[in-house]
Amino acid sequence: MSDHPALRYISKGAWGLVEPLVSPRAKDLLAKLVDFLENDVIPAEALFHAQIPTHPPEARWASVPTVLETLKDRAKELGLWNLWLSGGDFQGMAGGQGGGLTNLEYALMAEIMGHSAILAPQATNCSAPDTGNMEVLARFGTQAQKEKYLVPLLKGEIRSSFSMTEFGVASSDATNLRNTTAVLDAAKKTVSLTGHKWWITGAGDPRNKVHIVLAVTDPENPSPHRRHSLVLVDPKQKGVRVVRPLTVFGYDDAPEGHCEMRYDNVQVDVDSGVVGGKAGLGRGFEIIQARLGPGRLHHCMRSIGIATRALDMLLQRVSDPARKTFGKHLREHGTVLADIAHSRAEIDQARLLVLAAARRVDVAGAKGALQDIGIAKFTVPTMALRVVDRAMQVYGAEGVSSDTHLPYFYASLRTLRYADGPDEVHIQQIGKQELKRVEELRKRTDQIKAKSEKLLREGGKERAKL
Amino acid sequence: MSDHPALRYISKGAWGLVEPLVSPRAKDLLAKLVDFLENDVIPAEALFHAQIPTHPPEARWASVPTVLETLKDRAKELGLWNLWLSGGDFQGMAGGQGGGLTNLEYALMAEIMGHSAILAPQATNCSAPDTGNMEVLARFGTQAQKEKYLVPLLKGEIRSSFSMTEFGVASSDATNLRNTTAVLDAAKKTVSLTGHKWWITGAGDPRNKVHIVLAVTDPENPSPHRRHSLVLVDPKQKGVRVVRPLTVFGYDDAPEGHCEMRYDNVQVDVDSGVVGGKAGLGRGFEIIQARLGPGRLHHCMRSIGIATRALDMLLQRVSDPARKTFGKHLREHGTVLADIAHSRAEIDQARLLVLAAARRVDVAGAKGALQDIGIAKFTVPTMALRVVDRAMQVYGAEGVSSDTHLPYFYASLRTLRYADGPDEVHIQQIGKQELKRVEELRKRTDQIKAKSEKLLREGGKERAKL
Amino acid sequence: MSDHPALRYISKGAWGLVEPLVSPRAKDLLAKLVDFLENDVIPAEALFHAQIPTHPPEARWASVPTVLETLKDRAKELGLWNLWLSGGDFQGMAGGQGGGLTNLEYALMAEIMGHSAILAPQATNCSAPDTGNMEVLARFGTQAQKEKYLVPLLKGEIRSSFSMTEFGVASSDATNLRNTTAVLDAAKKTVSLTGHKWWITGAGDPRNKVHIVLAVTDPENPSPHRRHSLVLVDPKQKGVRVVRPLTVFGYDDAPEGHCEMRYDNVQVDVDSGVVGGKAGLGRGFEIIQARLGPGRLHHCMRSIGIATRALDMLLQRVSDPARKTFGKHLREHGTVLADIAHSRAEIDQARLLVLAAARRVDVAGAKGALQDIGIAKFTVPTMALRVVDRAMQVYGAEGVSSDTHLPYFYASLRTLRYADGPDEVHIQQIGKQELKRVEELRKRTDQIKAKSEKLLREGGKERAKL
Amino acid sequence: MSDHPALRYISKGAWGLVEPLVSPRAKDLLAKLVDFLENDVIPAEALFHAQIPTHPPEARWASVPTVLETLKDRAKELGLWNLWLSGGDFQGMAGGQGGGLTNLEYALMAEIMGHSAILAPQATNCSAPDTGNMEVLARFGTQAQKEKYLVPLLKGEIRSSFSMTEFGVASSDATNLRNTTAVLDAAKKTVSLTGHKWWITGAGDPRNKVHIVLAVTDPENPSPHRRHSLVLVDPKQKGVRVVRPLTVFGYDDAPEGHCEMRYDNVQVDVDSGVVGGKAGLGRGFEIIQARLGPGRLHHCMRSIGIATRALDMLLQRVSDPARKTFGKHLREHGTVLADIAHSRAEIDQARLLVLAAARRVDVAGAKGALQDIGIAKFTVPTMALRVVDRAMQVYGAEGVSSDTHLPYFYASLRTLRYADGPDEVHIQQIGKQELKRVEELRKRTDQIKAKSEKLLREGGKERAKL
Repeated sequence: MSDHPALRYISKGAWGLVEPLVSPRAKDLLAKLVDFLENDVIPAEALFHAQIPTHPPEARWASVPTVLETLKDRAKELGLWNLWLSGGDFQGMAGGQGGGLTNLEYALMAEIMGHSAILAPQATNCSAPDTGNMEVLARFGTQAQKEKYLVPLLKGEIRSSFSMTEFGVASSDATNLRNTTAVLDAAKKTVSLTGHKWWITGAGDPRNKVHIVLAVTDPENPSPHRRHSLVLVDPKQKGVRVVRPLTVFGYDDAPEGHCEMRYDNVQVDVDSGVVGGKAGLGRGFEIIQARLGPGRLHHCMRSIGIATRALDMLLQRVSDPARKTFGKHLREHGTVLADIAHSRAEIDQARLLVLAAARRVDVAGAKGALQDIGIAKFTVPTMALRVVDRAMQVYGAEGVSSDTHLPYFYASLRTLRYADGPDEVHIQQIGKQELKRVEELRKRTDQIKAKSEKLLREGGKERAKL
Repeated sequence: MSDHPALRYISKGAWGLVEPLVSPRAKDLLAKLVDFLENDVIPAEALFHAQIPTHPPEARWASVPTVLETLKDRAKELGLWNLWLSGGDFQGMAGGQGGGLTNLEYALMAEIMGHSAILAPQATNCSAPDTGNMEVLARFGTQAQKEKYLVPLLKGEIRSSFSMTEFGVASSDATNLRNTTAVLDAAKKTVSLTGHKWWITGAGDPRNKVHIVLAVTDPENPSPHRRHSLVLVDPKQKGVRVVRPLTVFGYDDAPEGHCEMRYDNVQVDVDSGVVGGKAGLGRGFEIIQARLGPGRLHHCMRSIGIATRALDMLLQRVSDPARKTFGKHLREHGTVLADIAHSRAEIDQARLLVLAAARRVDVAGAKGALQDIGIAKFTVPTMALRVVDRAMQVYGAEGVSSDTHLPYFYASLRTLRYADGPDEVHIQQIGKQELKRVEELRKRTDQIKAKSEKLLREGGKERAKL
Repeated sequence: MSDHPALRYISKGAWGLVEPLVSPRAKDLLAKLVDFLENDVIPAEALFHAQIPTHPPEARWASVPTVLETLKDRAKELGLWNLWLSGGDFQGMAGGQGGGLTNLEYALMAEIMGHSAILAPQATNCSAPDTGNMEVLARFGTQAQKEKYLVPLLKGEIRSSFSMTEFGVASSDATNLRNTTAVLDAAKKTVSLTGHKWWITGAGDPRNKVHIVLAVTDPENPSPHRRHSLVLVDPKQKGVRVVRPLTVFGYDDAPEGHCEMRYDNVQVDVDSGVVGGKAGLGRGFEIIQARLGPGRLHHCMRSIGIATRALDMLLQRVSDPARKTFGKHLREHGTVLADIAHSRAEIDQARLLVLAAARRVDVAGAKGALQDIGIAKFTVPTMALRVVDRAMQVYGAEGVSSDTHLPYFYASLRTLRYADGPDEVHIQQIGKQELKRVEELRKRTDQIKAKSEKLLREGGKERAKL
Repeated sequence: MSDHPALRYISKGAWGLVEPLVSPRAKDLLAKLVDFLENDVIPAEALFHAQIPTHPPEARWASVPTVLETLKDRAKELGLWNLWLSGGDFQGMAGGQGGGLTNLEYALMAEIMGHSAILAPQATNCSAPDTGNMEVLARFGTQAQKEKYLVPLLKGEIRSSFSMTEFGVASSDATNLRNTTAVLDAAKKTVSLTGHKWWITGAGDPRNKVHIVLAVTDPENPSPHRRHSLVLVDPKQKGVRVVRPLTVFGYDDAPEGHCEMRYDNVQVDVDSGVVGGKAGLGRGFEIIQARLGPGRLHHCMRSIGIATRALDMLLQRVSDPARKTFGKHLREHGTVLADIAHSRAEIDQARLLVLAAARRVDVAGAKGALQDIGIAKFTVPTMALRVVDRAMQVYGAEGVSSDTHLPYFYASLRTLRYADGPDEVHIQQIGKQELKRVEELRKRTDQIKAKSEKLLREGGKERAKL
């Protein structure tokens, strides 16, 4: 299957390595996805942007471009729906069709989606934060919570937010989060949620029907990992207020948005409104830990797609005959060729890293793949930023302007260097993890040295210097 | 097979991806190779170095450490002999047992060998330049040439040189080579070889029994690619002279060496002494092209092993309790952890790149894998140099001294950045290759744009700015 | 004067080197500027931004924040006006007071201004593109043009644009510019200007009273450097139209803006409306060349200031006690300390580079300083981007958001990597310039070699290898 | 003086900045030094190397090339002797003529010397470790010690070693050094020195007449900074033994060498043999601290010279007409031009950094310049290594071989990344130093914020987002 349409995006080297691990069904879905991307999704991007009003400000958050619904219908028709669903937890759930792919197979899909990171994930119901929220609900929600939120999420009828980050606090260490509390009544039947959050993705979206809010429910618990719970809140509910949309490099990401939120005495019933009901009290930290692994990898997968799209743009720009400087096409310049070669080499390596991590999740579970996911987490976005930056440079002023996607790509990728834990945290953890090999190494080295000395003695020689 | 001993060297992520492509026989050989490395090869390094006399200078080239023969015998016993042999061309050849591995499988072996790059390849008859020379003889030699040179090479009884590089000439463009000529007599029965070469690896070795010399035989041929032939020369023959051994960063690599050579009127019979006999005249350029691909990949594979050994050394050093500075273990320093994490990430990526390229050779042949091999060629040695340099830094003075292998690792790896074509040449070629995608990209972009305009028109909108 | 207030911003090392070259008057002005920056300018930034309406879109371009006029008045009072004026060309010009500084002295001023790059240059009438435009008018304008445009510009009463960049053309090679033509009438008395430009900085500003437009007036001239003229156009004039403001990473830079412009049959009198009158016809290319040198350096100077402000922000953030992660202050992390040290080292080096280039302009003129200016041009913005990016990273989400200046700093600096010629062009030129030393080097090397051989002969030795 | 011969080596930008600070006498010396370098020193390099026997090993350490004495005589004649002498401490000392330069002036000299780092410093009696040892003796030695050691050192009659580094210990934290002890007899009249040191530079040199050995004399002292003394030892004395010369990347640096040393019960009289006599007991740590600052800067100065020589070699190589590849001169390749431009930019910046640090020593003393020296320490060698590596790459095999100086340059520079404290230590210290500015920054920021809020209130506006 050397002429699979995905080879227009994925290098032959990587494909050769993983192809034996990809089922015929997944290959078929992948081919359909490429077709959908090229014939439906990317062509719809311009209309999508045009359908978002530029002003007045409030209009940006009042509606969702209709073209998106068209794309969603088409994706469902093609069976390109909920591809991220790995199976188990969603068995027999209405709307839960699709999926059943391995993580490796989904990695290939997600890379293709990354080529239209703004539309493709949403069009196929594979977008953050919904996917992570669906996982939380499927694994930890009560039956009623699943019916109320998970089913419409799986069907793409509603959207959701994950409300965790707090102002003035290093959120990468979740035990720091303390500015949102859900006070239990005496009977432990209801909680009153009050707090201040920001960077709540999707909170601006008119389709949003639920915020999953991390709040302190047991501040005195001796274990800092047992103090939080996850509270389900309706954005239309009394006491819930969007303070303002935040911007990233000047982009507001309307209509989804990243919002500053206030929750003031929001009344929530424990049974229906705490994830897992009463049994979920104090399990907030545990649940969000479980949520993070695969999500990080999905971001990496899509980032590869973004980087590849940027490289494809670069290739076309430097080949534009109108852009000769000093008598030379841009593509004839040695440094441009070097930029291309390095971009290709870096993309190829990053893709393989992500595919290997995805495969590792398949083989050893998300926990067994932590090291591989962590390495991808701090490696891939930085790589993609470099590639996008090189593309920007050949586009000149156009490359940083609203006339290309590049600055938006840059802004989106830049957030991944701190989201779900800043690079530095992952780098330190990988370093420490690697150091765990020392004991075995030392033992092995000692054995080798003993043998080595024995051989020297037998050979009648002293250890020489190189 | 999650507890394969190779996992002490190869990351689980990469292993998970390739394991389904590795045959049970290859897994078994790989396990034996790890055992051989740990129990025989690395322990023998000290004696190997001790068995090379330090002076007088000529003594360094007079004998080969006996421990090497012991290792070779052991490797044959274990079936770890000629693992690089891919089969086809060597069918039924005496000494040609072993091998039969795919390139992917051999890549794993070569990485393990890289942990003792000085001994393991020789011990298993997998070392350059012999492997490339054997390929030349097997594919292009006459039957008599195969019997005389190939059979003893396959048995590890003799060694060989490939005599190509010339002084004062950019050898990376082989058509530049013109300082060695093999003048045909009138009857075209003999040639008289005269020339000046340098960097002839293995020319100092007392076991060396043949130089394959690239020489101009048809200087007037209109095609610069038809002017050269490969001439087989006995190093003991009249007119052959080692001018001097060269050094790399102060290392002479005795007893193999990298030598400056003079050939003065060396008489060679065309039938027996031109590769391919009379039919081989003018095919020098063609043959050396065929020789280069897999060899480049072998170097990359071994470089991964060298880098991993350097990282393992680093891990042990920074964990040495005697080396606290300012009250802290070196391993507690954030920048040390970052060095470890980056080294791990870079090694993992490079390994995957090489494995994917090797797999590509299996799937599409060496020619079909050119792009992948080229990317590995300019990526891997640079990566390995970075890792070795980081290890050096934590070892301080010891790290640049004769008391560790690190400076020798550095010197060896540094040569790979220009050998078989400098990085810059490969980078330019990959850049140009990538640009060939532009036509397809442009067509696709045009189609997308047309659809996009149609959608805008139908939606009654103008193209908006992001 | 070791306690000069500028030492809060400029490292003592650089100060020690240049201090003897700074006049007492310049030191006094510099102290006043630091005071103005800290007590007036930076405190006014928030009000400035608050005074720009967010909507409707057209309101953003309708007025200029009044706080700016307050600052301008204050700067005039303090004698901090037109500091960039180097003297000569502006002698005796109304409004031309201030200035008289050396380029080295002005470099120090410009770095301080860079700490509030959005306000300080405007407040002191030292901002692009006005400074370059004033230079053009002073050096090449007719007396009438000087009175009409230069005098009010020097007084800060009006603003101006330089209209050069064209869509779809590599503008870094100005001979490519051909989409704007100014057709002379038969009598050569008037021109009719028609064309399409973009990235016209300041074209959105309601105070803007003149565009200096580069247009083709002599398309058939055999020399591509004699085909263009500079045409003065009133933005309110018939045929002049702002198509739209462009954005940089989502920022529109209102009310100045960077605009796409159309000029449709704009009628201009040659005597009054071509820079230099009739004598200026065909001199467009020559004039813009003269304009570029010092402007490039001013950008570099300010970039150092931006980088230093970002580092100062970083220092404060990592010292924030509320932001512990995993029990540690951010400032205790080794990689954070390394980021700080590298930022400091890079800023220090870049500053010295710019100061040396400024001094070189003082000593050898702008032409004599081309090499030094070119090196600064491709070095400084990249450095500043790195520092800003490090600051972003420690600020997390806040660092890419509208709540800090960092993403705006990043966006502004990013444009400098292609504006006035992309880095690549300058890099190539410096490389070529440096190669001009080869002839002298070769001669010297030959002499050395001859002497060396003589010494060897006299010493009775052969050349040894190291 | 725009045509000073030093401008063949030092960029005009840097020269323009420092020239007003350079005295006429220093300019004259500098011109003589350039002449000496070009006409005497570099031409003598080949003979110097040829005069060092290659074998037997012991012959390498038995004599010093006679050409060196010729050069020393010539340098004395020209007044280019002991240029590093800053005056004060050496007043009226026999042999102490020369010198009297500022640190800035000497920085220029040292850069020129760096072009022949192997010979020029020795030829002018400006080489490590003698300069540092002379400083120690001048500042802390007794009168008798000065007469015995300092005077002949100043005359260039003898050489010396500084014996500090110990095996198996992180010597960068000198309080760790504990493997060498000097036990006082009961009467405190003599000490018995026993210990194990390595990397003792110059210990192989037959001219060496004194080792200054850091030894523990008061192991129980509560302050770890009062436990050590410096003991003067004659290398011919009983109990002093060179265990072996060490190599750096395979180079032994004969006849100076870097040696592993044993001191076994070496008897030393306290008055004559402890630096400072009885009063010097326990002051070892204090003295070595005083020794390090300027020495670090001298290394940096010379490194700039090495980098410049490597760049000059690169320029000549890429201009060699014999080295076309694929029809192009190497100098026509865009990536080669970029390598040149970046090398030039990096050298220029590093030079300015070192000059500013030297000037700072002149203005504020070595202590006041610690920050500037530290930044240079971790910046300059890394930069020089990059430039040498680029030169290597264009030289191909020749560039790593004994036929060019490049690998030796590389090896020498590489040691500077850990000598006198590894880069990491300096980086951490600079980071911490920089953080000391936070208090002032925070105060200033608070004042600005208060003013800013006041302006907003007065202007009737809320803080807007950018």
